[in-house]
Amino acid sequence: MLESLRENLLTDVDSDDLRVVIISARGPVFSSGHDLKELTSAQGREYHTRVFHTCSEVMTLIQDIPVPVIAMVNGVATAAGCQLVASCDVAVATEQSTFATPGVNVGLFCSTPAVAIGRAVPRKVAMEMLLTGSPLSAHNALLHGLISKVVPEDRLEEETLLIAQRICQASRPVVALGKATFQRQMSQGRDAAYATASRVMVDNLALRDGQEGIRAFIEKRKPVWSNKAEKAHD
Amino acid sequence: MLESLRENLLTDVDSDDLRVVIISARGPVFSSGHDLKELTSAQGREYHTRVFHTCSEVMTLIQDIPVPVIAMVNGVATAAGCQLVASCDVAVATEQSTFATPGVNVGLFCSTPAVAIGRAVPRKVAMEMLLTGSPLSAHNALLHGLISKVVPEDRLEEETLLIAQRICQASRPVVALGKATFQRQMSQGRDAAYATASRVMVDNLALRDGQEGIRAFIEKRKPVWSNKAEKAHD
Amino acid sequence: MLESLRENLLTDVDSDDLRVVIISARGPVFSSGHDLKELTSAQGREYHTRVFHTCSEVMTLIQDIPVPVIAMVNGVATAAGCQLVASCDVAVATEQSTFATPGVNVGLFCSTPAVAIGRAVPRKVAMEMLLTGSPLSAHNALLHGLISKVVPEDRLEEETLLIAQRICQASRPVVALGKATFQRQMSQGRDAAYATASRVMVDNLALRDGQEGIRAFIEKRKPVWSNKAEKAHD
Repeated sequence: MLESLRENLLTDVDSDDLRVVIISARGPVFSSGHDLKELTSAQGREYHTRVFHTCSEVMTLIQDIPVPVIAMVNGVATAAGCQLVASCDVAVATEQSTFATPGVNVGLFCSTPAVAIGRAVPRKVAMEMLLTGSPLSAHNALLHGLISKVVPEDRLEEETLLIAQRICQASRPVVALGKATFQRQMSQGRDAAYATASRVMVDNLALRDGQEGIRAFIEKRKPVWSNKAEKAHD
Repeated sequence: MLESLRENLLTDVDSDDLRVVIISARGPVFSSGHDLKELTSAQGREYHTRVFHTCSEVMTLIQDIPVPVIAMVNGVATAAGCQLVASCDVAVATEQSTFATPGVNVGLFCSTPAVAIGRAVPRKVAMEMLLTGSPLSAHNALLHGLISKVVPEDRLEEETLLIAQRICQASRPVVALGKATFQRQMSQGRDAAYATASRVMVDNLALRDGQEGIRAFIEKRKPVWSNKAEKAHD
Repeated sequence: MLESLRENLLTDVDSDDLRVVIISARGPVFSSGHDLKELTSAQGREYHTRVFHTCSEVMTLIQDIPVPVIAMVNGVATAAGCQLVASCDVAVATEQSTFATPGVNVGLFCSTPAVAIGRAVPRKVAMEMLLTGSPLSAHNALLHGLISKVVPEDRLEEETLLIAQRICQASRPVVALGKATFQRQMSQGRDAAYATASRVMVDNLALRDGQEGIRAFIEKRKPVWSNKAEKAHD
């Protein structure tokens, strides 16, 4: 599953036509994380190492690919499934969805999910989830920043597509530059972050789509994006 | 505008009489950020570099000057205007105020605003604002920590001044030491942060106003501040 | 008080029988922080240094001991008392409890409390508390992540014990590994954090209780923990 997810995330990732990725699931479970049968001692340490390495690769890949990734959640997201939601750029969930890190109850503390969740919600929220395994309701997940929007079940697809369509209306290289810069500057101290982001603003302005957007705004017309990471000629 | 803001922030900044700065606006827009006409290719890369350098300077100056800075917001705060709100120490806003980073829609991703906003609100909140440009209501801005207080329009000035007056009742050097230490320790790891803050507590106690405050508390009277960064004699 | 708290935190800390620590208070004040009479110039700089060193030691000890620490709060938590709440892994509080850092009003900015509070709540929430000394209600403390749960006064003990019991149902070495890893990885960058946490997941699986938990889950029975940090034989 992780390898197929990685492959899917990388498919067409450099194509100008790919603009946004939506991760969803069929049935009442969004994702319940690792298959515990893969984690018994029968598989051995090396296999376990490979499983968690692949998992971390997929989670960071979501943040590192140039297109935004949206989680469309209807149901249960637990352990690495909750980590998956936390790792996405945007997450839309139905009112009955729940989010939990119950690994502690089966003797496997959700330490890798905690990397993503601990960076998404306040520390006390993360710690209570991790120590008790108790689920967070969609409402509380929204309140604490784990997800972006809560919607009734019959509007899940519509609301998710609305966000996706907004993203598709923007220029691909502008979104790609912005997403990459966000991840980079957030890992830096404030002053280094401003140096990084200021350089990027100037680079963004030098893009063909950067200049087109500003000209269109001044001329009060809709911009026509090239969606290519090309510099403006002038 | 940025240069005038910088000059205003630095005016009397070392005077014992300056105790708090309030940034407000006339009209329905608090600040809509950069003038896009300044960002066309006609001005050129060097000019753009200077614009974003000055902008980052002003934003960090707000956090680095010794007096607290309050944003008093009534209306729209977008792009660098939203960054300005995020950069202030305290922000009071009217119920109808809105906060957005819509640069992506004009081909200029709000990467510098994201430095301040990404450090003020949860990551998913920041990412949705940045990727979609959709505005955050005052209520949601409060919920997620972008602003400090939401008030009805007819109470905006009164409520802002109440906070300003509370700050003015404290000793200037004590506030200055506290504000500077907060910025410094938050950029450090926990143990280094405690080492920094513990040293500062001892230095604070050695201030004339530090000793006056504690004596006044013990003697159950109002403290009389010198408002000068002087050490206590004893 | 700080020395007695430190001693209590360390008592039996390595015993397999100690599984969770609850910090509570008798009377209407949870903790109002330092005794200001200890902080006059009469005691001198060296004594002050020792006080804040001990305080920081106790606060970091709470996060560094292998068992979770729960604050059970009924009443006022101010200054270092608020820092104590912020430092605990979980905090349950009654509806009438309040949280404040009013040091600025007595000329002693709450710079050491700010280390814990600034890492628990959004920056603007922390800054307003620190600059004005105004109390946060239990409701707002919950909203902003300073505490984990708000309950009516007559249910405080029951709800706190429910969380404690959940923690006691888990394996001690699994909880200890998870708590320590959370603190460690949160101080690292994302990629280093994933490397740390992935290694820990494999180590956790190699624990006797790690394997027992997974076997019990697969066999649909309750796990029987050894509660010892021993490796599985197979």
